[in-house]
Amino acid sequence: MRIDIITVHPDLLTGPFSHSILKRAQERKLAEVVVHDLRPWGLGKHQQVDDYQYGGGAGMVMMIEPIYNLVQHLKAQRKYDEVIYMTPDGERFDQHTANKLSLKENLIILCGHYKGVDQRVRDMLVTMELSIGDFVISGGELAAAVVADAVIRLIPGVLNDETSALTDTFQDGLLAPPVFTRPPEFMGHRVPEVLLSGHQAKIEQWRLEQSLQRTRERRPDLYQKFIETDHANEKH
Amino acid sequence: MRIDIITVHPDLLTGPFSHSILKRAQERKLAEVVVHDLRPWGLGKHQQVDDYQYGGGAGMVMMIEPIYNLVQHLKAQRKYDEVIYMTPDGERFDQHTANKLSLKENLIILCGHYKGVDQRVRDMLVTMELSIGDFVISGGELAAAVVADAVIRLIPGVLNDETSALTDTFQDGLLAPPVFTRPPEFMGHRVPEVLLSGHQAKIEQWRLEQSLQRTRERRPDLYQKFIETDHANEKH
Repeated sequence: MRIDIITVHPDLLTGPFSHSILKRAQERKLAEVVVHDLRPWGLGKHQQVDDYQYGGGAGMVMMIEPIYNLVQHLKAQRKYDEVIYMTPDGERFDQHTANKLSLKENLIILCGHYKGVDQRVRDMLVTMELSIGDFVISGGELAAAVVADAVIRLIPGVLNDETSALTDTFQDGLLAPPVFTRPPEFMGHRVPEVLLSGHQAKIEQWRLEQSLQRTRERRPDLYQKFIETDHANEKH
Repeated sequence: MRIDIITVHPDLLTGPFSHSILKRAQERKLAEVVVHDLRPWGLGKHQQVDDYQYGGGAGMVMMIEPIYNLVQHLKAQRKYDEVIYMTPDGERFDQHTANKLSLKENLIILCGHYKGVDQRVRDMLVTMELSIGDFVISGGELAAAVVADAVIRLIPGVLNDETSALTDTFQDGLLAPPVFTRPPEFMGHRVPEVLLSGHQAKIEQWRLEQSLQRTRERRPDLYQKFIETDHANEKH
């Protein structure tokens, strides 16, 4: 998989992609993330990438021409499955979308900044608009990093132990159960006895009960969906 | 405001806090973000911060002792309003929470990694659990950066033009209207005439209609909430 990220702040993305899991994925040639600085595609002497918005009002708007030219340049080199625009009014990104995107070959992720991009970019170039939540952040860079991370870690071989991703929260529609590690007691707070028992069937039963209880308490919406699907039949 | 972030991957956070708006906020002494590497607080010669989970299963769990010691060390220096743990099963972070947190003095944000932290960290130390969405990412670092960004940009004086944040999506309960900038025509796609008219009252009317329409189409939940509150009376 290849992800091309278009941004006016490439420096914001140096940390997330040069360390940890995403670094390993790139070293293993399982994923490639290429960050493109939009600035050299800017117009005129000053390499302008944004301008005041028509109709007045605070905040700059990213112009279509530099983005259009860079996207065409990329499309001339390979076929892209999606051109994704990160925006708080997009479709909510979730694990289901992460799973779908992890099967794609080539993605472009466009990071908005300031007041966002000219609407014509969305109408003419963008094929998918994603939001990571009902809040506003300074730009799409962190959101793009979140999407790239969530997607790339699902590619087989990226995590050292594949079962690790499979038992994550959301992969089976339930929240993960509580986890504990050493010491068995800390300032009077003990690890639940069952986890120390070595009785694997009882441990799995306890974990399922805890998952169900936590999901019912914290996320009644997910719980309802879970018991309505055949997951419920599979697991009980 | 001061935000202390606890992480086992401080390098992941170098980009987001050394550029752009967060950099400016720190230069203006409006906000301070201090990233703490948990590793030196690890146990023994190998500065161990995680261990296998009790009961078996893939994935490491972050131990309580290093976290406890670092949090106590910080608490000895100042009073913290919240100790926030980033976790996908936490309360959904949104603009409302961002507004609330922007009024606080001192926050600790704890980033989980691997399978997360020992449950006793959550029971004994954490006062608030936040999620940025129904998806799994490699660690809490990007989520912590998202929260810090969303919160810090709301502090008065951080954005150059304060009205800019006030007209963002969600601040008034509606999605933002489409925005346009030069050129007035691009490959046959024209900017709406009203935005070029210079007639400010008509422009504001158009923007409100577009906001309402976009919100109704894309986020019926927000639209419903909006028309049920007195915002509707204020605006019409």
